[in-house]
Amino acid sequence: MAVNLLPPQAGDLHPVAGLRIGVVEAGVRKANRKDLTVFLLDPGAAVAGVFTQNRFCAAPVQLCRSHLASGQAIRALVINTGVANAGTGAQGLLDAQAVCTALAQHLHINPQQVLPFSTGVIMEPLPHERIVAGLPAAIAAAQADHWLQASHGIMTTDTVAKAFSVQVMLSGVPVTVTGISKGAGMIRPNMATMLGFVATDACIAPGLMDALAHDLAEASFNRITVDGDTSTNDSFIVMATQQAKHPTVTDWSSTDGQALRSALMQVSRQLAQAIVRDGEGATKFITVTVEGGRDAAECRQVAYAIGHSPLVKTAFFASDPNLGRILAAVGYAGIADLDQAHIDLYLDDVQVAVNGGRSPSYQEADGQRIMQQSEITVRVVLGRGQATDTVWTCDFSHEYVTINADYRS
Amino acid sequence: MAVNLLPPQAGDLHPVAGLRIGVVEAGVRKANRKDLTVFLLDPGAAVAGVFTQNRFCAAPVQLCRSHLASGQAIRALVINTGVANAGTGAQGLLDAQAVCTALAQHLHINPQQVLPFSTGVIMEPLPHERIVAGLPAAIAAAQADHWLQASHGIMTTDTVAKAFSVQVMLSGVPVTVTGISKGAGMIRPNMATMLGFVATDACIAPGLMDALAHDLAEASFNRITVDGDTSTNDSFIVMATQQAKHPTVTDWSSTDGQALRSALMQVSRQLAQAIVRDGEGATKFITVTVEGGRDAAECRQVAYAIGHSPLVKTAFFASDPNLGRILAAVGYAGIADLDQAHIDLYLDDVQVAVNGGRSPSYQEADGQRIMQQSEITVRVVLGRGQATDTVWTCDFSHEYVTINADYRS
Repeated sequence: MAVNLLPPQAGDLHPVAGLRIGVVEAGVRKANRKDLTVFLLDPGAAVAGVFTQNRFCAAPVQLCRSHLASGQAIRALVINTGVANAGTGAQGLLDAQAVCTALAQHLHINPQQVLPFSTGVIMEPLPHERIVAGLPAAIAAAQADHWLQASHGIMTTDTVAKAFSVQVMLSGVPVTVTGISKGAGMIRPNMATMLGFVATDACIAPGLMDALAHDLAEASFNRITVDGDTSTNDSFIVMATQQAKHPTVTDWSSTDGQALRSALMQVSRQLAQAIVRDGEGATKFITVTVEGGRDAAECRQVAYAIGHSPLVKTAFFASDPNLGRILAAVGYAGIADLDQAHIDLYLDDVQVAVNGGRSPSYQEADGQRIMQQSEITVRVVLGRGQATDTVWTCDFSHEYVTINADYRS
Repeated sequence: MAVNLLPPQAGDLHPVAGLRIGVVEAGVRKANRKDLTVFLLDPGAAVAGVFTQNRFCAAPVQLCRSHLASGQAIRALVINTGVANAGTGAQGLLDAQAVCTALAQHLHINPQQVLPFSTGVIMEPLPHERIVAGLPAAIAAAQADHWLQASHGIMTTDTVAKAFSVQVMLSGVPVTVTGISKGAGMIRPNMATMLGFVATDACIAPGLMDALAHDLAEASFNRITVDGDTSTNDSFIVMATQQAKHPTVTDWSSTDGQALRSALMQVSRQLAQAIVRDGEGATKFITVTVEGGRDAAECRQVAYAIGHSPLVKTAFFASDPNLGRILAAVGYAGIADLDQAHIDLYLDDVQVAVNGGRSPSYQEADGQRIMQQSEITVRVVLGRGQATDTVWTCDFSHEYVTINADYRS
């Protein structure tokens, strides 16, 4: 079902020096499914992350925040699918800690040097014994070229694995950026049931890492929505192993800095958009751009109102240019002093509405033609300022209902 | 599909003295469908209304606001289905005015004494000539006992007509409250593609009417959601014809005032809940009550997050007690300082979660049993105050997608 999203090929995914990945079946919830992934980092890597804004955040998210805040060097990540370890109360924290402690013992590091991640069903206890039992095999399996396996190992309702990789020259030295993501439902601003991991062998001043993770997420994972449900477990991690032999990037405005940031942004955005392309039941990839706002925040607010509207999304599914539903969503987006008489609406290059009413030039056949495409841009002009923002989303199909009505069974 | 909602019977709908209703086919959009309704009020009636908060409000909504604000006595309502006359710019206003002017000429009143209402497809021009041509027949057909016809005449995607009627004694005099509503999708707080009309022959001091309309809407139509889409056309009108022979109600705390307000509230709430029961594709009626909040607003915010979540709603459709999705919705509802460790969750009388984790007493079989019911109460206790609020919603089914993908065709 994924919209214009090809499965990754192992040959396209460049290993990142200083990082090995092991993927095994631990039997967390379903048989015959690789559900446990470890990332093992050489000493010296810099790691930063951003996490869900959901107040019901999962136990592993709470531990990640705490471990990153401890200032100890992160040396390993452990990811399980099947069970989210969210809504599990105090026991959930103990279970996640048990996994970190076990992995730390195997690696002869401190438990705070481990970041745990879980994705799956909420409010079921984490079968931590099974995960702990699976760790030795995962460690033994770890290799630098296991990115493809990892992209499969973290999937839940995803239909296509998501992995991207680019190389860029920094001061004449080739540097790699490779990442994977998962997520197909419960996708929304401020993260999603979304896991994203991006690694580079570039040398990045550790002081730049937190802001980098934030900026990358803001321009990628925090601009997508499938169903408006913000997950309990969303996590986005950026790792720099510092093993490439170029001068350390200390400033994003330098030539190397710009090139590296651009490569990181490209991979992050591809990973985020891949989640939308594989949105539960998605048949279309929709770019919603809102222009002419007073500030980016209000443009985003309008873009999300459009991107979340079940009526708009079902119209896209049906290829029905019932475009008044978009205007209705603009109207209820929450801008109290919005003047409908200044609003224009475009579908790709076709002007649909002008000054709040149907454009005299608009022909339904043109709307129909564009609605049948698999990639569509909705452009709304608010006519009240110079700001702009963009959100990516998908349509809403029968398949979404089927997937979410059957997920656990 | 409607959940435990019986069609109204003509004999149950008491006429309201001083109000006649005519319903005809004007051919607005589809053949063989009664699509034009007029309400004709005798002189002396008091009328008040509340309208959509959508900034893209329809032309008729703009005229209703203006006509009510003019202070002239309202003498007629005119309602068409098929076309919403929203997103129609300046021309839409002219078209709605043309309808009001034509009806006013027939009735020898001022156009500002007419309130217009439209519901249907957005951004299509109103075929005002056809509506104007249908007015004489509608006026000629007007009778006091046409409430059932009116409940059918205002339907769009509704599967069951919605009408309720009660009688109450005020100072020994029987007084009637009768109302109709329509709406099945685009239903959300702050009104919906929802039209509600409640009439009484009671004598109510005109100065009480605006606050009454607001209070009734707040406790009924503004507490329902089907899909989170706030329509461009929502309108709720309260009419008091002042023809019953009891002393005028000037104070809601009097015995008569309490009895009348209770009757009005009962009819308004039944009409609002009927919209949810007939929610597009609904198979279940869900009451979401949030308790223990600091104020009612934050309880409402949490209740709507649950009521809008596609993941929660598809789980209800599937009768799948995947109840962690409810906790996730609580977590992203937007209460920044919410502490998950204080949150309890009940499904009817079954405690599902305690202190943010699964309750030790919870058995999945109990959750399963309640999820299979057609009427379910979700109760969330926030554990941070004494406030409470309730919202009514429905589940999210394949049928919703089918209806909204096919609505125009």
